[in-house]
Amino acid sequence: MDFTLEDISDDEIARRRAVFEPLVASVRDLVDAVIRTEVDDEVVVDAQRTVSGVVDALRAQQMDGAYGVRYTSNLVGMAWGNAVMGMRNAIAPPVHSTPDGGGVRAEFTLGAAYEGPPGHVHGGVCALVLDQVLGEAAAADNKASYTGTIEFRYLRPTPLGQLVARAEIVERAGRKKTVRGTLSDARGITVEAEGLFIVPKDVPEL
Amino acid sequence: MDFTLEDISDDEIARRRAVFEPLVASVRDLVDAVIRTEVDDEVVVDAQRTVSGVVDALRAQQMDGAYGVRYTSNLVGMAWGNAVMGMRNAIAPPVHSTPDGGGVRAEFTLGAAYEGPPGHVHGGVCALVLDQVLGEAAAADNKASYTGTIEFRYLRPTPLGQLVARAEIVERAGRKKTVRGTLSDARGITVEAEGLFIVPKDVPEL
Repeated sequence: MDFTLEDISDDEIARRRAVFEPLVASVRDLVDAVIRTEVDDEVVVDAQRTVSGVVDALRAQQMDGAYGVRYTSNLVGMAWGNAVMGMRNAIAPPVHSTPDGGGVRAEFTLGAAYEGPPGHVHGGVCALVLDQVLGEAAAADNKASYTGTIEFRYLRPTPLGQLVARAEIVERAGRKKTVRGTLSDARGITVEAEGLFIVPKDVPEL
Repeated sequence: MDFTLEDISDDEIARRRAVFEPLVASVRDLVDAVIRTEVDDEVVVDAQRTVSGVVDALRAQQMDGAYGVRYTSNLVGMAWGNAVMGMRNAIAPPVHSTPDGGGVRAEFTLGAAYEGPPGHVHGGVCALVLDQVLGEAAAADNKASYTGTIEFRYLRPTPLGQLVARAEIVERAGRKKTVRGTLSDARGITVEAEGLFIVPKDVPEL
């Protein structure tokens, strides 16, 4: 597991964010628009040609493989390819958690691209987001960890729209941590999660 | 939960697929290219302007809300917005399962957009895909069902690349079904899953 050192300044990080964040936001809009559009076929065909041209332009120079997880030497993390919170990943809703009491909390919105049952969040997307948020809660003591097991209990369907995820460590035992979390809409909890997270021996402190 | 009747012919379904599949494939490429590109900033800025224009063109006429889950009167399902297998959803890898013995099986490839740990599939993406595949196995007796609980056991990190998911019903009790599944790479199983699925009273037979 190769965590990459990329020693760039805070200014350079801010510059890269300023270049990429608008593009990633537009690609998120595009994903949504492709699902929901009702325009004539010719417009869809034109859109494909245009998007394909943009892909060619961006691929003119590109890294081999995935983005990876990069850190500066003062340990600013840049998991910019991450499927849930990555700054350069248009699949990521994105979900950004902040400290909340002893745990973490994230507010985010899930639109048409995250649908499973009609008008509702895909159960697996609930799991995707909670896996990330529970993992961040597990790392709240500055040690990265991997999910050993995680269980989700679906109390009722989660509507698409504004949601909140919370998680915190509830038990520690050696390199193992038990983390509990919830996904909620305005009416209350829709999904409960409990995970066992394990700190590997070879991972740097965050 | 509103399952929509949209009575179109097989030919019309094929026509719509022919129009949208190339666009969705190009948007998937775009998501990947945005993560991996190393072109100069000007190209990224130009890409944003172009993508934004395509979004405007597609949004000129669009449905309210999400795509929903639509069926023809002879029960051909069109869950085209689905986050894991939806034909119009560029977030979906996509994962398509086929019957396999008493259960279902899906082969698919996960690239840079599904990354969590460096070079590896996000644990939550493993859960996302398995939730869908276990749900499809649960529906193998022609009754749609919802996930009650689901647990994932991570045996080792799942590398990005070609993967296989399998699932089958292992126990039935009234409206409840226990389904077990696995995610595997070429070396063997990486994640095990077990879910309890529930057939609601108000869902049509598929």
